[in-house]
Amino acid sequence: MALSLNERALALVERLIDDAEGLGVTVHVLPNGARVVDCGIEAPGGLEVGRIFARVCMGGLGKLTFSHLALDGWWLPAVTVHTDQPRLACMAAQYAGWQVSKDKYFAMGSGPARALIRAEEKLYDELGYNDPARVAVLCLEGRTLPPEEIAAYIAERAGVAPSHLTLLIAPTACVVGGVQVAARVVETGLHKLHELGFDLRQVLSGLGTCPLPPVAKSDLRAIGRTNDAILYGGQVHYTVRADDAELEEVVPRVPASTSRDYGLPFYDTFKGYNFDFYQVDPLLFSPAEISMTNVVSGRTFHAGQVNVEVLKRSFLE
Amino acid sequence: MALSLNERALALVERLIDDAEGLGVTVHVLPNGARVVDCGIEAPGGLEVGRIFARVCMGGLGKLTFSHLALDGWWLPAVTVHTDQPRLACMAAQYAGWQVSKDKYFAMGSGPARALIRAEEKLYDELGYNDPARVAVLCLEGRTLPPEEIAAYIAERAGVAPSHLTLLIAPTACVVGGVQVAARVVETGLHKLHELGFDLRQVLSGLGTCPLPPVAKSDLRAIGRTNDAILYGGQVHYTVRADDAELEEVVPRVPASTSRDYGLPFYDTFKGYNFDFYQVDPLLFSPAEISMTNVVSGRTFHAGQVNVEVLKRSFLE
Amino acid sequence: MALSLNERALALVERLIDDAEGLGVTVHVLPNGARVVDCGIEAPGGLEVGRIFARVCMGGLGKLTFSHLALDGWWLPAVTVHTDQPRLACMAAQYAGWQVSKDKYFAMGSGPARALIRAEEKLYDELGYNDPARVAVLCLEGRTLPPEEIAAYIAERAGVAPSHLTLLIAPTACVVGGVQVAARVVETGLHKLHELGFDLRQVLSGLGTCPLPPVAKSDLRAIGRTNDAILYGGQVHYTVRADDAELEEVVPRVPASTSRDYGLPFYDTFKGYNFDFYQVDPLLFSPAEISMTNVVSGRTFHAGQVNVEVLKRSFLE
Repeated sequence: MALSLNERALALVERLIDDAEGLGVTVHVLPNGARVVDCGIEAPGGLEVGRIFARVCMGGLGKLTFSHLALDGWWLPAVTVHTDQPRLACMAAQYAGWQVSKDKYFAMGSGPARALIRAEEKLYDELGYNDPARVAVLCLEGRTLPPEEIAAYIAERAGVAPSHLTLLIAPTACVVGGVQVAARVVETGLHKLHELGFDLRQVLSGLGTCPLPPVAKSDLRAIGRTNDAILYGGQVHYTVRADDAELEEVVPRVPASTSRDYGLPFYDTFKGYNFDFYQVDPLLFSPAEISMTNVVSGRTFHAGQVNVEVLKRSFLE
Repeated sequence: MALSLNERALALVERLIDDAEGLGVTVHVLPNGARVVDCGIEAPGGLEVGRIFARVCMGGLGKLTFSHLALDGWWLPAVTVHTDQPRLACMAAQYAGWQVSKDKYFAMGSGPARALIRAEEKLYDELGYNDPARVAVLCLEGRTLPPEEIAAYIAERAGVAPSHLTLLIAPTACVVGGVQVAARVVETGLHKLHELGFDLRQVLSGLGTCPLPPVAKSDLRAIGRTNDAILYGGQVHYTVRADDAELEEVVPRVPASTSRDYGLPFYDTFKGYNFDFYQVDPLLFSPAEISMTNVVSGRTFHAGQVNVEVLKRSFLE
Repeated sequence: MALSLNERALALVERLIDDAEGLGVTVHVLPNGARVVDCGIEAPGGLEVGRIFARVCMGGLGKLTFSHLALDGWWLPAVTVHTDQPRLACMAAQYAGWQVSKDKYFAMGSGPARALIRAEEKLYDELGYNDPARVAVLCLEGRTLPPEEIAAYIAERAGVAPSHLTLLIAPTACVVGGVQVAARVVETGLHKLHELGFDLRQVLSGLGTCPLPPVAKSDLRAIGRTNDAILYGGQVHYTVRADDAELEEVVPRVPASTSRDYGLPFYDTFKGYNFDFYQVDPLLFSPAEISMTNVVSGRTFHAGQVNVEVLKRSFLE
C-alpha cells in the first residue's frame, strides 16, 4: 500500500488532541463533523505544539528538536529539522502552496491535504504522488478560525467527508507560528532548488537549523521575522545524487543572498512593495547558507552564510 | 477534568520503573506500599534517568534534550529544556520548595506532590492550582533513602494512601543530580521573576540551555557546582504577554549578576556564610542570561551573560 | 531476569520494520526465515534510519539526537550520543569487533549478536556479560546483502534459529553509514581506554558529539571520512569512579593526537599502509577530545582538541 501522508499526519494529530489540555490547544468539532484544532488564536499553543504542528505539516516524514545557536556570541533558541523523504515531506506536504481564499476567509494552507486537493496540479504530477487516504489534514497559517462553510469547502476539495477532515490553525504571530515556519528551513531550500530547475528526486536527505523568530506584535511583522529567520539565519545540508557540474552551477544560486531583494529585513522589503507579495523576488525565499554533498563524487558544494546583522535588526528592533 | 500534574508524572515514572534495569534505578516497595525509586544513592542512575527525573519534576509538562555548549571554545555537555506551561511545570511542580525534614531525615522536595501538600499555601493560592489526583509523586534531592515513616508522613501530607505514593530520590553529587538541577534553568528564572513581583501568568513559554555540572566529590561541593551551572552558565528565553514598561524595569534585575553575592563560585559564597543558606542573597538564584519577548509589542528585552571564568573555576578546579 | 541486549535491540528493529516504507528500508525474508534489513545498499536509508541503526548497535542502551557543530564558524550537522551503560552498550554491543568473513562474503559485524557469538571470548569474559536472548540482531557494515548461507552461519554462531535472526546492513558510503559511525564516538573513546588497560567498570556514563561525515564516493573513501569525523571532530565526556592518579596518567594518552599516525586524513594514512588495516596504529582510534570527571574527587581531566584543518581536508576535498 502506498505511503499516506495524511494518515501519518493524522496519527500525530490524534496524539496532539489526546493531550489538548497539557499542550494548550483547543479542539472545535464543527456541526459537519470537521475538527478544527486551535493552536494559537484563542488557545495558547506553545513550543511543543509547534514541534508537532511542523511534523504534521511534513506528513510525519520529518522530525525536529529544539536546540540553540550561538551567532557571534548571541545565544538564540533554534530548531534542528531533518527529513529523509524531502520531496514528499517538504514539497508534497509542508510547502505552503495553497491559499485558502473563499468568501471573506483567508489563510495559507500547507500540509498533506494539499496532496489530495492537488490545486498545484503541475507540482503533484511532477512529484508523481497520490495519497490513497480517505482522511485529510490541512495546516493553516491564519488569524481566523475556519467556519463550517470553509471546512466543507476544504473537505470537498480534498474529496473526503467533512467528518474526516482535521484543520490545524495558528497565526504567524504566535509561538507555534514561529516554530512551524522555522521548521521550513529544509523545505525552503528545496523549493528554491525546484525553482532553479533542479530535479528534487536527486535529494536523498536534508538537515537544517534555524533560529526561532521572536513572536512579533502583528502577523505582518511576524511574516517579516519568520522569513528573516530562514533568509538570514537558516543553514541546511542536503545529501544528493547528482552531477557535480550541475551542483557547481546551481548551489551558488541557492542562498537568499543571491536575490536582488536580499539585505533588508523582510518587513522593509515587503513594505517597499506595498505588501504585494507578488512583487517580491520569488528567488529570495531560501536559507542563508546551503551545502550539498554529492554521493556520486563525495564532493560538497557550499554557498551563503548567516547574516547576524540583519537578523538582529529583524529580531531585536 | 482538570489537568493533573501527579497523574502525568506517574505515567513517566511507570516507564522509568518498567525499564529499571536498563536505566540503572532500583525500586524499593516499602511495607506500607509506598515506592521509592533510587536514582543515584546505591543505584547508578545516569543521564537518561536524569532526563526522566527532570520531566517528572515538571509534572510531565516540559521536555529536555541533551546537547552541548561551546563557550569560548570550551566544549561542554548541556541540556536544553522547554515548557509551555511554565507556571504549572516550574512553580507548581519543579521548584524545590518543600523541605522534607522530620526526625533525623532531611531531603529537598520538588515535583508535583508539592501541589497536593500545599506547604507553600500562599504560592498555590496564587497559582490557583488544585490537583485532583489521588496519586502523588515527589522528587527528593538527598543522600538517604526515605524509610517507611517518612513515606507515611509524606503520603499523609499529600492526602493519598501510602501505596499511591512514589518517591524518586537522587543526591546532588551524582549524574542524575546534575541533570535534574541543570534542567531547572527555566524554573530558576521564573522563580526570580516571581520574587521580583512579576505576575507569572504573563509567561507563555520558556526555553533554556544549561551546562551539565561535573559530578562533585561531595553533596556540598555539588550544591556549589549545580548552582554555578545555572548562575554562570544558564541561558533562557521567555515569551510573555506583558507591558514593555514592566519588562524594561524587571528584565535587567533578573540575571544572577545583579545579586550582591554574584562573582564567586557558589561554594565559596556559601562557605563565607558558614553554609547557612538563609544568609545567601535569595536574588542570586537566577540564570546568567535572560531574554524575554513581549508578544504585545514584539520587543525583546535582554540582560546578563554567561561567565566562563567562574564556571571554569567551579567545574574544573 | 538479566538484561538482554538482543531483546532490546529487537524491539527497536520491529519499529524500524513497521515503518519500512516511511523510513526507506527494505526487509528481505530469506528462505530460512532470517530477516535482512537493507538500510542503504539498494534501499535509500537516511538520517532517521541511521539514528535507529545506531541505537540497535548499542542494544537499546544509548540514545542519539541530531544537532550541529560550529567549528571556527563552520556549520556542520552532528550527532549527540549518550549512554549510561557504556560497557554493555558500547563494548558488548556497539563495537565493530567481529568480521563476518566466510566464503566470498565480507562485512564488519557490530551490535548485540556479538554477545551471543562471543568470537571475542576474552572481551566477553572480562565484561562478564551473557545475553539470555534466543533472538539475535547483528549490524553489518558492508556493500553486499548477506545471502542465506551467511545468515545461516551467523545464526549458528549465535546459537539461534535462523528465523530468530535479524541482520541490519548499510555500507560505509551512505547516509546511515555516516550516522552510525559518528554515533560510535563514545564507544571509540571507551575502546581506547580499554586498550590502555583502563578498567571500564569505572565508567558510569558518557556523552559525546561528532560531526556527520559527508557521504563519500566509495566505501574506502568513506572509511576515511567516518574515521576522521571521530579522530579529528569527536568530543566526549565520561563520568567515572576511579583514582585521580590513574586518570592523570591515562587521560593524556586517550586522544587520537597521541598516535604516531595522527595528523593526516585517515584515507591518506591508510593508503600509506597500502590499505592494510593491521599496519595502522591501533591507538589512533579515539576521539579528538576527551574529558573525564571523577566522582570520587570531583576533578575533571582533559586532553586533546578538535582539528578543524584536517576535518576540512577530509570532508571538503
